[in-house]
Amino acid sequence: MAVKIQIKNGGVTAAAGFVAGGVKAGIKASGGKDLALLCSGRPCAAAGTFTTNSIRASSVDWCEYRLPSKAIRAVICNSGCANACTGKRGVKDTAAMATLTARECGIDIDTVLVASTGVIGHFLPLDMIATALPGLYDGLEADGGSAFAEAIMTTDLVKKEAAVDVVRGRQRYTIGGCTKGSGMICPNMATMLGFITTDASIAPSRLSAVLKRVVGRTFNNLTVDGDTSTNDMVLVLANGASGIRITDAAQLADFEAGLFTVCNDLCKQIAADGEGATKRVEILIKGGATEAEAKMAARAIANSNLTKCALFGNDPNWGRIACAVGYSGAKFSDEKMSIRLCGVPVFRNLQPLKFDQKAAHEALRQKVVTVAVDLGVGHATAIAHTCDFSYDYVKINAEYHT
Amino acid sequence: MAVKIQIKNGGVTAAAGFVAGGVKAGIKASGGKDLALLCSGRPCAAAGTFTTNSIRASSVDWCEYRLPSKAIRAVICNSGCANACTGKRGVKDTAAMATLTARECGIDIDTVLVASTGVIGHFLPLDMIATALPGLYDGLEADGGSAFAEAIMTTDLVKKEAAVDVVRGRQRYTIGGCTKGSGMICPNMATMLGFITTDASIAPSRLSAVLKRVVGRTFNNLTVDGDTSTNDMVLVLANGASGIRITDAAQLADFEAGLFTVCNDLCKQIAADGEGATKRVEILIKGGATEAEAKMAARAIANSNLTKCALFGNDPNWGRIACAVGYSGAKFSDEKMSIRLCGVPVFRNLQPLKFDQKAAHEALRQKVVTVAVDLGVGHATAIAHTCDFSYDYVKINAEYHT
Repeated sequence: MAVKIQIKNGGVTAAAGFVAGGVKAGIKASGGKDLALLCSGRPCAAAGTFTTNSIRASSVDWCEYRLPSKAIRAVICNSGCANACTGKRGVKDTAAMATLTARECGIDIDTVLVASTGVIGHFLPLDMIATALPGLYDGLEADGGSAFAEAIMTTDLVKKEAAVDVVRGRQRYTIGGCTKGSGMICPNMATMLGFITTDASIAPSRLSAVLKRVVGRTFNNLTVDGDTSTNDMVLVLANGASGIRITDAAQLADFEAGLFTVCNDLCKQIAADGEGATKRVEILIKGGATEAEAKMAARAIANSNLTKCALFGNDPNWGRIACAVGYSGAKFSDEKMSIRLCGVPVFRNLQPLKFDQKAAHEALRQKVVTVAVDLGVGHATAIAHTCDFSYDYVKINAEYHT
Repeated sequence: MAVKIQIKNGGVTAAAGFVAGGVKAGIKASGGKDLALLCSGRPCAAAGTFTTNSIRASSVDWCEYRLPSKAIRAVICNSGCANACTGKRGVKDTAAMATLTARECGIDIDTVLVASTGVIGHFLPLDMIATALPGLYDGLEADGGSAFAEAIMTTDLVKKEAAVDVVRGRQRYTIGGCTKGSGMICPNMATMLGFITTDASIAPSRLSAVLKRVVGRTFNNLTVDGDTSTNDMVLVLANGASGIRITDAAQLADFEAGLFTVCNDLCKQIAADGEGATKRVEILIKGGATEAEAKMAARAIANSNLTKCALFGNDPNWGRIACAVGYSGAKFSDEKMSIRLCGVPVFRNLQPLKFDQKAAHEALRQKVVTVAVDLGVGHATAIAHTCDFSYDYVKINAEYHT
């Protein structure tokens, strides 16, 4: 009896027992939704992965200090202000945001997780948050995941949700989540903000271990611009509302497969909505000596500005891909290393292959483009998610702040 | 009696005893000069530093195999074709280019250095080189450095030369050079192509050691786009025509100071002419625990796409600079770390400082902008050279190849 991972609609409220919502608190200059709340009726096992940036927002410290936990009840998140590089006042403001939320929800302050995203170096407008919270709490709904996903957006053009049912025989539970992120996105992080819920029951330490493995194969191989943010985190909450308990190895493997599907889908959505992106790019590495080396090659290509500009121009300029593999530090075989662009072999045995340039140019116009590299030395694989690099990335980031 | 480093006009032929030239061989589609030759009447001590990219052009291997040397007579360089990723045929073509040059100049093949720059993955048009060489050789001149500098350009908008006289008392000798490079430029390399000559006399092993130190403080802290090229190298030739011999420690220090001035000046010229650049940016780090850490911080900022887009937009968005310091891996003091933008303090003690945003916006409109970071933990310093990141970088690199 094989496990089935069934993709379904929904996000953080796809799993039973979660309610969520999002409102306009006035933090964003654009006037969009900017305050989001996720609550669970019962205490959740919870785990997180966090940015590796040494300069971290106090919200990241707040969550990491409390996780893993078996008692989380709520996640409050604002967009429009990262509350990063704000010193001691920033630390106090994060605690105040948790206190306000705990009071509103009638729960213990240590069961509240806090996340912030937006401009660095501005103080949190606590008065706006205090004013908006009662309405936000009153409006929480079992199908409020979409409003939550909308309220955490910054330069994102679309909201990003994914959910699956994990089914084995008569047992069925749900994993769902949402994420935000469009710029300041790079490997070696615990990614931008990601919120995932499940109605399965799982021990916090196991949840934490599974999350780290899955993030290592998904969010950590995602890059838009090579800049690792100060505020990144992925949080997962498991409330057990489905009655399914994840205990043995087979169940853990099923859960990991489900979580991978949700996280991988969210990564693709971030890549497709990368700042200024006109297309999504998947870097597929095989033949690596180790998984770490396969990842090094994948990330080097995914972070190569030259490669990404060429893809924007639909230019089959594979020399830039070979160049990135060369400086990645990953071992490769001179004879066996090969590169395919949208399935077309372009480079092998350190020599150019003849190919139809016009057809390749046309193939690169697709909305999803693949760059496949066989390093030719082993059996390890890696996937990196990214996008092309366009005028609009520059435009968005030259005009973002002032 | 102190040494004087006197800046003067000129490039690779500023030093006595060198002749150079550049012609149109037809390699570049644009029809510009694309074949350059530098010759010395007497054998030169010569040294080089080379790209760290594992995929290297055969011209890089050719030079590294022969250096340091005390017998170099000529450097031949083409632009318009990198002859990289061209397999065994590429290796043969590099040797053929050296052979043709040696025959034309009437010198030994092992005294000829070869360099190539341009598109990756195309074969060298040897017939064009063979046809152009006699005219190039006949036209070599003692003031041909400028033609040489022009013929090695690719996406460069201007040619880049620098020269100094090193004067102590009645002793005087010259160091001069030129470089090319505008994209695919990144730290951890031996840079794009750089050619430096001197009429001092110095042992090859010493010349090599001095060059490595100077490149580590100049070209290796230069970045345009984070992409380390397959063809980078810096070559230095010393022919002794001035009659000055560099032997004792004081003389070596003088020579190093002169070489530093030439290389640093060439780096500034590359940064100012970075693909699409509207301004040059100097990243000045002090207070580092070690020089390596100061360099890590400098390079992280210099490679941050977000920071460079903000500088293009004249946006004093220092949060992106703090973010880059945070992920650089360099140690810093929470209390003492500070950031100045064009001299204006903007961040200290992990907190934003109040400053005149409009004045900062105006200051960022200058042609040279400084980002100064005090890490606050030690006494080590580093400088990185870069430029802003504009629409035109994307335009140039989306349209370069096809």
